[in-house]
Amino acid sequence: MMIKDLLNDATGKIVLLVFDGLGGAPFPGRGTTELEAARIPHLDALARRSACGLMVMVDHGIAPGSGPGHMALFGYDPVATEVGRGVLEALGVGHHQAPDELSARGNFATLDPGTGAITDRRGGIPTQERNRELVALLNDRVRVPGYEVQFLSGKEHRFVFILKGPGLADRLTETDPQVTGVPPPPVRALDPGSEVAARVVNQALDSIREALRDATPQNFVLLRGFATVPRIEPFRDRYGLRAAAIATYPMYRGIAALVGMDVLDTGPTFADQVAVLRNHFSSYDFFFVHVKGTDSAGHKGDFDGKVRVLEECDRLVPDIEALDPAVLIVTGDHSTPAALKDHSFHPVPVLIRASTAIPSGADRFTEASCARGVLGVFPGVKLMPLALGYAGRLKKFGA
Amino acid sequence: MMIKDLLNDATGKIVLLVFDGLGGAPFPGRGTTELEAARIPHLDALARRSACGLMVMVDHGIAPGSGPGHMALFGYDPVATEVGRGVLEALGVGHHQAPDELSARGNFATLDPGTGAITDRRGGIPTQERNRELVALLNDRVRVPGYEVQFLSGKEHRFVFILKGPGLADRLTETDPQVTGVPPPPVRALDPGSEVAARVVNQALDSIREALRDATPQNFVLLRGFATVPRIEPFRDRYGLRAAAIATYPMYRGIAALVGMDVLDTGPTFADQVAVLRNHFSSYDFFFVHVKGTDSAGHKGDFDGKVRVLEECDRLVPDIEALDPAVLIVTGDHSTPAALKDHSFHPVPVLIRASTAIPSGADRFTEASCARGVLGVFPGVKLMPLALGYAGRLKKFGA
Repeated sequence: MMIKDLLNDATGKIVLLVFDGLGGAPFPGRGTTELEAARIPHLDALARRSACGLMVMVDHGIAPGSGPGHMALFGYDPVATEVGRGVLEALGVGHHQAPDELSARGNFATLDPGTGAITDRRGGIPTQERNRELVALLNDRVRVPGYEVQFLSGKEHRFVFILKGPGLADRLTETDPQVTGVPPPPVRALDPGSEVAARVVNQALDSIREALRDATPQNFVLLRGFATVPRIEPFRDRYGLRAAAIATYPMYRGIAALVGMDVLDTGPTFADQVAVLRNHFSSYDFFFVHVKGTDSAGHKGDFDGKVRVLEECDRLVPDIEALDPAVLIVTGDHSTPAALKDHSFHPVPVLIRASTAIPSGADRFTEASCARGVLGVFPGVKLMPLALGYAGRLKKFGA
Repeated sequence: MMIKDLLNDATGKIVLLVFDGLGGAPFPGRGTTELEAARIPHLDALARRSACGLMVMVDHGIAPGSGPGHMALFGYDPVATEVGRGVLEALGVGHHQAPDELSARGNFATLDPGTGAITDRRGGIPTQERNRELVALLNDRVRVPGYEVQFLSGKEHRFVFILKGPGLADRLTETDPQVTGVPPPPVRALDPGSEVAARVVNQALDSIREALRDATPQNFVLLRGFATVPRIEPFRDRYGLRAAAIATYPMYRGIAALVGMDVLDTGPTFADQVAVLRNHFSSYDFFFVHVKGTDSAGHKGDFDGKVRVLEECDRLVPDIEALDPAVLIVTGDHSTPAALKDHSFHPVPVLIRASTAIPSGADRFTEASCARGVLGVFPGVKLMPLALGYAGRLKKFGA
């Protein structure tokens, strides 16, 4: 049974509000999660009128990366549809990778000029200015016959490497041995289909070595996470939804573009995002609104900061409700407890507000109260079918 | 995605305390389950600070045997990794079956000397002494060229049959027709790979018939549950855990050995087991502590007895907590409600205590309160990934 075979001609709009890293865990010395500590009266009131649950994004016990978390949210199997590190890095610096491109995450590194062994995997951590100089130099000098090579600046020692041309595939070994004292190995193909790519990347590496010969201390690079862009059925074909993304961070704008959403221009604040939502509300069926601040604070271990982002956004929830979407979903792509300073496996709270949603008697929008909701604990990849169901957009299955 | 690809170098210890047959059902005339009736203040307090849930060990509505229940607990697919009855019977009498051995559960039986038809499938239920005499006689006389044959005493009319040698497989029909009045059929192979085994078992049966010719009334045997030992990835390879089992019953010690745990010597009481846990706490990463009494009482329909085992063990829970494992799990391998006097399909209560566990507001450790916990109702086979997740032993999946 395919969801698209069940689509009818209903037109109810769906708003998916994603607080990145929403879920938390008890914080040492406080004993509560961020959601439990936050004063979020509008989200709490919304939860009281919503179907609630907890989502397992990838699998029980598994902490999802941003790629798998969002792929699951958008209804794509997060394991089968893995979005490679290179693709995500490219998206993160605003590059939407084409099907004939191979990307990788690069480090500027320092090799011993005599032995060729790596002495610093981060090349002394260059300044942003130096990073840009090095990237300009590489874009100027590196050439591979029959292919385009492109370098994009990242932070500190990081950059993105893009190779464009025929026959590229991504089953490649990496050139970063993760230790110093040994020379970086050449790239090898892990399957016959990637042999062309291995050869071309090694040619590029020769050219990079030549280009950086006199650069100090960043006289070479390390490449890992080689990735071509996965084949993904566009959102509109899959769900019959004209979809728009309202996200401020390049990576999330990129993931949305990857599944075929229109990526709308927006200012940096949540108020800006809500205004964009309002202004485009009549033009799309589905809106993905992405708030990054919760995750950023979680990564820093900043419990109060994460609480503050939730509280600030909470004030604007009524403005979203005022648009009266058929379905309003509030959730996250994974948990980022400040207690752990990283993504975690904790299931993600979710509320679905719709006219046919059955409230669970939850009085708060927290992990524990969502656990008692009518949605139960369920796989995140089922959120999109649920959204379509609550929007009345699916015919019944079978007679 | 394989769990082992996500293992990091964290070292938090995991204690898995299994009350065999933990879950219950409302008992006639009382209306409560055993957990609801028990005074277990320490387990209740632990549940209040733990992530709680209910586990479906094999599938909804399915009552698991001890093999599937434990395989699921240890994270092995309980249907794909079936541990045959012969293997479990052998483990139950302390025999750890080797890869080149075929085992079966045996009954001493009585045949009509004239017609060869079975007159008693239990051979008059011999005394334990008579059982041992018969087993000694069989070990003395039964021979199959090129193979070793071994008999091990069980209870009453039961024994374990072990055949050791090349080319044995277990897709065999049984020789117990489950009725009297017909002769026991010979063994037939159900696939070509088991034809050698069929031939050898039938040779053994001829030799057994000869050996028991003058025995009265146990003049033959019935064999069923032929099983070779399944190929199981060892616990340490699968999870990176040095694992130890602290169990008093041979079958559970055997299942633990089957998945590669060290089986520690222990005295018969729960206090003995807790002492063994304490003494070995620094030497392992994972401890499987198995309490049999709950299941035994459940099988007898002894509601109060099951309650009593829970209450007695509850007193020592603080001693386990005092060891401060990163993760403490309390659960069962299946339910054995005294109301049913047998294993049942009821999902099994589970609590996971860890610093990042989100309590659910449950005030008791009961089936119903666990149902409202943040773990929800989930497959038992996911307990190990969850344990590793709560122990911080898994890297995130995807970028």
